Amino acid sequence: MKQFTSVHDVTDINALVAEALQLKQNPYALQQLGKNKTIGLVFLNPSLRTRMSTQKAALNLGMNVMVLNIDKEGWALELQDGAIMNGTTVEHVREAAAVLGQYVDIIGVRSFPGLKNREEDYSETVFNKFVEYCGVPIVSLESATRHPLQSLADLITIEELKTIERPKVVLAWAPHIKPLPQAVPNSFAEWMCKADVDFVIAHPEGYELNTHFTQGATITHNLQEALTDADFVYVKNWSAYEPYGKIIGNHDDWMLTNDMLTRTHNAKIMHCLPVRRNLELSDEILDGPHSVVIHEAGNRVWAAQAVLKQMLESL
Amino acid sequence: MKQFTSVHDVTDINALVAEALQLKQNPYALQQLGKNKTIGLVFLNPSLRTRMSTQKAALNLGMNVMVLNIDKEGWALELQDGAIMNGTTVEHVREAAAVLGQYVDIIGVRSFPGLKNREEDYSETVFNKFVEYCGVPIVSLESATRHPLQSLADLITIEELKTIERPKVVLAWAPHIKPLPQAVPNSFAEWMCKADVDFVIAHPEGYELNTHFTQGATITHNLQEALTDADFVYVKNWSAYEPYGKIIGNHDDWMLTNDMLTRTHNAKIMHCLPVRRNLELSDEILDGPHSVVIHEAGNRVWAAQAVLKQMLESL
Amino acid sequence: MKQFTSVHDVTDINALVAEALQLKQNPYALQQLGKNKTIGLVFLNPSLRTRMSTQKAALNLGMNVMVLNIDKEGWALELQDGAIMNGTTVEHVREAAAVLGQYVDIIGVRSFPGLKNREEDYSETVFNKFVEYCGVPIVSLESATRHPLQSLADLITIEELKTIERPKVVLAWAPHIKPLPQAVPNSFAEWMCKADVDFVIAHPEGYELNTHFTQGATITHNLQEALTDADFVYVKNWSAYEPYGKIIGNHDDWMLTNDMLTRTHNAKIMHCLPVRRNLELSDEILDGPHSVVIHEAGNRVWAAQAVLKQMLESL
Repeated sequence: MKQFTSVHDVTDINALVAEALQLKQNPYALQQLGKNKTIGLVFLNPSLRTRMSTQKAALNLGMNVMVLNIDKEGWALELQDGAIMNGTTVEHVREAAAVLGQYVDIIGVRSFPGLKNREEDYSETVFNKFVEYCGVPIVSLESATRHPLQSLADLITIEELKTIERPKVVLAWAPHIKPLPQAVPNSFAEWMCKADVDFVIAHPEGYELNTHFTQGATITHNLQEALTDADFVYVKNWSAYEPYGKIIGNHDDWMLTNDMLTRTHNAKIMHCLPVRRNLELSDEILDGPHSVVIHEAGNRVWAAQAVLKQMLESL
Repeated sequence: MKQFTSVHDVTDINALVAEALQLKQNPYALQQLGKNKTIGLVFLNPSLRTRMSTQKAALNLGMNVMVLNIDKEGWALELQDGAIMNGTTVEHVREAAAVLGQYVDIIGVRSFPGLKNREEDYSETVFNKFVEYCGVPIVSLESATRHPLQSLADLITIEELKTIERPKVVLAWAPHIKPLPQAVPNSFAEWMCKADVDFVIAHPEGYELNTHFTQGATITHNLQEALTDADFVYVKNWSAYEPYGKIIGNHDDWMLTNDMLTRTHNAKIMHCLPVRRNLELSDEILDGPHSVVIHEAGNRVWAAQAVLKQMLESL
Repeated sequence: MKQFTSVHDVTDINALVAEALQLKQNPYALQQLGKNKTIGLVFLNPSLRTRMSTQKAALNLGMNVMVLNIDKEGWALELQDGAIMNGTTVEHVREAAAVLGQYVDIIGVRSFPGLKNREEDYSETVFNKFVEYCGVPIVSLESATRHPLQSLADLITIEELKTIERPKVVLAWAPHIKPLPQAVPNSFAEWMCKADVDFVIAHPEGYELNTHFTQGATITHNLQEALTDADFVYVKNWSAYEPYGKIIGNHDDWMLTNDMLTRTHNAKIMHCLPVRRNLELSDEILDGPHSVVIHEAGNRVWAAQAVLKQMLESL
């Protein structure tokens, strides 16, 4: 694997899931593969799960890890080509990416969207500059529009916990007080549309995702209907795609309750975390028997390890 | 050892000190023990000695280390159970702790007190949530009311440098301009009360520590008397327990001078550091022959290594 | 090598360059040398290249690495001897340096100048306190007046890419909007004056460097003349030495263009980075065939690795 920026970089998602589950059984068997190989994890935004699980995955494979919080430990990057850099940016991403590529064998980059300019966000300006200039394989630690390591961990979790061959998986929009990126739902949708599941997206009117990511999904504004017979409910807030980055209307009634789950097929509740309790998801669900969010977060290690393994093999 | 949060987690403090001193002689002998084991060091507050010495201890044991400055590299944690998270906190400590526990074999946590609400601080709200939810052995990197790795290093230092079987050890309050936690003196008192020393606490009236930590100590407001024949003087400021977190009165005359040390038994001067020179402790003492503060700081490695060794053995 | 703070710490710069180029061919051969040895990288200022390349160099040698952003993860250091520390500084550099020396075998320190007080900056107050108190070999990660790891990487680059025995190397001042330190040009000059090159410094009147660093260099205010037949042009801004730390006059015409390069001997363009595009150096040069800035940045690893190797050998 030469890059991991979306599901489209994966030849066979089922094989990748299988590989992750094998690594979970035997995490330290391949340390010769990563010996003297270094991953640089470059964060333009905060991170907890991705930061720690990707480090762990790399260490499991015998790699060295170097972490760079580029905004805090370095300086502001210029992203505009042709800019006369007489403002506050200190280094152009062209140099920063190319230089980092001199020091590491694989780069991971996290770069959130600004949620101001849809065209800019959806063209993945920052992330793609790193891809273009770093000169080494790159793995997305969440970009403006996708979070593929999360989606792979989600698919691993579904594969592990499903009780029927082709489970019904519902991506259920949830309320939030801040406008959040569409990266996680875009990415989850894109992966589920390729997976062997019955995939339904439920959201209030106005929260339609870019159809590029949802080809093949059933989309409904009726949460109750969506929940019926669901095996997995993936809870996630996102802001509107149009008007871009906005919160539209009040939909507090979209927060799941145990009561609403009765119509599911004893569904497992998933969330990428962090989750705002009693806003996105209630205590009763998060602390109850349906929640698999911690198990899901644990699978972030095996997702990252499977991806890094394939990257190391193609170095 | 399943957790290290206070002296009460230690079966035999003398055996632990002996183990630390053995590790100091032979730091790298046990690297097989930590192979493929990972410690996560989670800081909610700044740290220099604890950060570096605990890393070094883990590396000496062959462990992998992942450091997380959760407030700066992650986000603000919610601590209140039942909270509707529509404010500034992004993730509940329940999830944060549980997720981190998925990625590491041992967790270290630093969480200072707020010094506003005594009951909250003394119930160790934050720290205990990590203990409750992380699901792996936890080592205190200083909590609201205790700093046991420091106290263990202090006891190691006393054991190494004592010239008589049962030395007189004085915990001497010193001035400061900011209200400091009681964690270090609480913890030091608690350990000294269990150690084979003659233990005296000297502080101005009003700076009484919680008696929970000082059972068995001699407590005096007369610094001169306390210093008489002392073998070790442990200098430390703390704010009042009642009124909680306050500085009461002006006690600049409690700053030690060489002159005041003449009445001691050629006492060694200890301090946990950082120390404010010429406010808590004078240059003449810190730069003179009595000070053992650097040696004491060096022992932080062996304290941490002894604790991590026992934790690794019980994984 | 017991310390690496300037070219004066190096017995034979050509031998050091040769060693670096050997390590570049065979980066992982000496991992036994660094086994169980730890380097502590202490940053009082931001860093990207130095941070990542020095880590990589240490890892290549089998060392452990601990990074400390002391201002962000620790606290403000007091630098003044004799200070009564009743202000905002929390720990004196005497203690901080000495304690860090307890935990590591080699210390790297980055400490920029304040550019307010020339005497203070040029006496290297902060850096020299670390040298004095840490008690272990120290490597400069850029101090107030020098950046020797950069200069060594520059010399390695010149050695690799030169097409004639004794190339003409021009240090060419370039415009900037902020007053920058003299550390990189001082250090480059000092190294070039010892190297087997024809060394010319070109800058506008008023930007004279301290002559301590430029003994043996040809100095001119005529950029065109300096560029004639140049084999390497090292582009760099610096603020004035007198009046100290100031920008004097407008010299936008000192930004190099491809057109100006026609009079060179097909010169390679160097820069230590970060570079402000279209202010210090034009896009056309940075993206054109003359630029070797990324290659040069890559050599930072081998510079650091050669220095650390010699330090490890003398531990």
